[in-house]
Amino acid sequence: MYSVDINCDMGESFGTYKIGNDEKIMEFISSANIACGFHAGDPTIMNKTVKLCLEKSVSIGAHVGFQDLIGFGRRNMNITPKEAYEITMYQIGALNGFVKSYGGKMNHVKPHGALYNMAAQDEELSRAISEAVYKIDPEIILFGLSRSRLIKAAENIGLRVANEVFADRTYTDRGTLTPRKEENALIKNEEESVRQVVKMIKTGKVNSTTGKEINIKADTVCIHGDGEKALEFAKKIRSELMINNITIKSI
Amino acid sequence: MYSVDINCDMGESFGTYKIGNDEKIMEFISSANIACGFHAGDPTIMNKTVKLCLEKSVSIGAHVGFQDLIGFGRRNMNITPKEAYEITMYQIGALNGFVKSYGGKMNHVKPHGALYNMAAQDEELSRAISEAVYKIDPEIILFGLSRSRLIKAAENIGLRVANEVFADRTYTDRGTLTPRKEENALIKNEEESVRQVVKMIKTGKVNSTTGKEINIKADTVCIHGDGEKALEFAKKIRSELMINNITIKSI
Amino acid sequence: MYSVDINCDMGESFGTYKIGNDEKIMEFISSANIACGFHAGDPTIMNKTVKLCLEKSVSIGAHVGFQDLIGFGRRNMNITPKEAYEITMYQIGALNGFVKSYGGKMNHVKPHGALYNMAAQDEELSRAISEAVYKIDPEIILFGLSRSRLIKAAENIGLRVANEVFADRTYTDRGTLTPRKEENALIKNEEESVRQVVKMIKTGKVNSTTGKEINIKADTVCIHGDGEKALEFAKKIRSELMINNITIKSI
Amino acid sequence: MYSVDINCDMGESFGTYKIGNDEKIMEFISSANIACGFHAGDPTIMNKTVKLCLEKSVSIGAHVGFQDLIGFGRRNMNITPKEAYEITMYQIGALNGFVKSYGGKMNHVKPHGALYNMAAQDEELSRAISEAVYKIDPEIILFGLSRSRLIKAAENIGLRVANEVFADRTYTDRGTLTPRKEENALIKNEEESVRQVVKMIKTGKVNSTTGKEINIKADTVCIHGDGEKALEFAKKIRSELMINNITIKSI
Repeated sequence: MYSVDINCDMGESFGTYKIGNDEKIMEFISSANIACGFHAGDPTIMNKTVKLCLEKSVSIGAHVGFQDLIGFGRRNMNITPKEAYEITMYQIGALNGFVKSYGGKMNHVKPHGALYNMAAQDEELSRAISEAVYKIDPEIILFGLSRSRLIKAAENIGLRVANEVFADRTYTDRGTLTPRKEENALIKNEEESVRQVVKMIKTGKVNSTTGKEINIKADTVCIHGDGEKALEFAKKIRSELMINNITIKSI
Repeated sequence: MYSVDINCDMGESFGTYKIGNDEKIMEFISSANIACGFHAGDPTIMNKTVKLCLEKSVSIGAHVGFQDLIGFGRRNMNITPKEAYEITMYQIGALNGFVKSYGGKMNHVKPHGALYNMAAQDEELSRAISEAVYKIDPEIILFGLSRSRLIKAAENIGLRVANEVFADRTYTDRGTLTPRKEENALIKNEEESVRQVVKMIKTGKVNSTTGKEINIKADTVCIHGDGEKALEFAKKIRSELMINNITIKSI
Repeated sequence: MYSVDINCDMGESFGTYKIGNDEKIMEFISSANIACGFHAGDPTIMNKTVKLCLEKSVSIGAHVGFQDLIGFGRRNMNITPKEAYEITMYQIGALNGFVKSYGGKMNHVKPHGALYNMAAQDEELSRAISEAVYKIDPEIILFGLSRSRLIKAAENIGLRVANEVFADRTYTDRGTLTPRKEENALIKNEEESVRQVVKMIKTGKVNSTTGKEINIKADTVCIHGDGEKALEFAKKIRSELMINNITIKSI
Repeated sequence: MYSVDINCDMGESFGTYKIGNDEKIMEFISSANIACGFHAGDPTIMNKTVKLCLEKSVSIGAHVGFQDLIGFGRRNMNITPKEAYEITMYQIGALNGFVKSYGGKMNHVKPHGALYNMAAQDEELSRAISEAVYKIDPEIILFGLSRSRLIKAAENIGLRVANEVFADRTYTDRGTLTPRKEENALIKNEEESVRQVVKMIKTGKVNSTTGKEINIKADTVCIHGDGEKALEFAKKIRSELMINNITIKSI
């Protein structure tokens, strides 16, 4: 029997600005990564999204990012490990207030965007983020790119981790994501995307862009919540996983 | 035997910008109100200030304010009670992460600046703030203007409170602070300022600007941490209180 | 022969966040009020929207607001007239850079949201805003609520003004807008909305909510650019005005 | 006869937060680089600083930086050339409003902190910044690191430039500044610092950290406005330059 978690970024609206289709997508996922007011989100959205997660029994995670609303946390910023530690702690704490107010419990933390990508390749940054998580609550699970430095750093200090794979992204020979600027970075065909996920879960392997079979670990699959086809794809991957006898559940 | 708490706003620096003389003033107070990144403060300062409080055995409080860094949270903003609830919860949570990371415990919450003044007179706003505090941790003490609506709202929902008085402010016949724009709003003479505090603590009375003796409750005295004479005054009030057999301790 | 200007708020997106349907609505209006990065908008959107206006021969205006992105500039803030002067000047200047970069010319300035409403009733605030406009360029036209204090203040210092009316809002006996919290604040019927506009333009009168006929001046009509029906209504009002022999043109 | 410009960063306060000693330092410089609200500064400070420059006959420049107040614009951010163009234009425009309001004229633009350093080595970024300046006003002078890519890019599109040297920084064999993290990055001895400046101006040469004599162009010298000794050093360098028959004047 196989099982996997499906996670999705949630609560990315800000004030009057709306992003995503949170209420609907919530039906199809097992974990939500909630923006904490730095790259997206605000106190009102955070409160609402936490409540929604608890109603739908979706696991709650803090989606911590750079303080760069205008760039949606997607632009690399040259911060020190100490700063990474502090912004991670601040954001987890802020979300945790809402979680506790409903008597809930935070399940996981996932760095967002540029912070996620930078941490995947930077040991010091990864250690700083991991320590912030551990110091707040050593039971929180850290989500990171499968087999990346972030995963290793988190394991080293004793955190539980979830190796994350992407449904719609291709992989290089080294097991990293093909950079978005490359033409073949995205899998646009939904069937192919689902096939890749099923293979990763069942065999622990994925085919790189050069056709090489490489090792991967798929504890959680990231799907997208915005875009026209997001909802449809969420339904599809959920049903295909079930057909393949893969249970969807939070970690 | 009398006792009183002395509180001071702390951690109001921001990035490269420095305000206050936190390390030195910390020697003379029993409670610190730490800015949480909205009207002042940032994750780095918050981390540093929490650590300092624990080292100096000063009680830690969240100083929650409007998201108005440029106005230092001193400009009234027309927010809804729901928004007040949410920004209060966000800020308490954010600070609480740092507090927990050191194994500490948050002692109190004090609204800052315009939010403090607005809440003192607004029942709904006061209830919203009180509820946010209660939902995160019903053991947290809420600091508010002595005998104000904020104090009543907090008591109504079962929170412990601290009635706050000001060393350097005068009072109207109704027991409210004389507005800062009035000429006689501030007590500039230090002796007089200390005498007023001692009287409030020992007799539960204060003389208004018209000379009328009015009831007041002095659980905690607010002193200022910035300005040239802040440190000197902190020393003075501390020694004068001790001379008057008033113990200084956190609530 | 009658003529009127149709204005609409534009460039309200921010980073990844999108609001409005600017390119399409631009076909139906004569003046655009472009957000300047305080309550909405960012340098990228401003650049794009200015270019679009010049391509479509739509007059360019600065839509200046409070520095309150999270509240979209709709929450009253207690700023001083001096601060109002300075934030107005800053925002006009910022937009003006983009306008000049294309060899264009700024046509007008319109305060946004809470700043607009506060100025309509506050003489000092109105004078401060008017002075900022005048000092940058005395040829810029100031848009304000018809017959409000903002209009008077602008005229007093020698600025040209445009009295603004709203297609979908009702009026009180005093000629002010019925506050949004009142049930009858909005005209939901499109026919009625158009009829009100035509009457205001042709007769200089409008019926208040109590049925009383009051004086009004309609130099420019504000329509909305977001919402499902915005585009449809823009088309409708444009064609109805033409049918009524009212020319649509910038001031 | 030799002449040189002395420039200093000004207007770096923000709201309640104060940095620098602008009024006093203004007596000793010929050009001010005024922060524009992104990495530092706000509309109130900008207004005040522009006025001060005009009163003291100090040339006015826009000090444009990253939108990173918390990092004071000193952290590298991975922005696109298009974004660099747009944030440069926005900030110049914003400052220009204040300059025009007093009937003044903007003299120069200088990128700040991380943007300055990144541009010095990045051709595309330099071109984008130069174009923004040129489009707003081709008469504005661009300040950049002496002989850097920013200087070349600006010259290529027809802007006038000022090659900037630093009084208190050492140089590598390639003519770039020794990175701040190196031990010998700063010249702490004031005599030595002044000698280096005089030599650069009179001979067009500077000794690198390895003792090699390299070519440099010194149109403008940057001095610092904050720190205890800033004022004293400003006086000293001014008098030493005069003793050496070097006239201090804006470009």
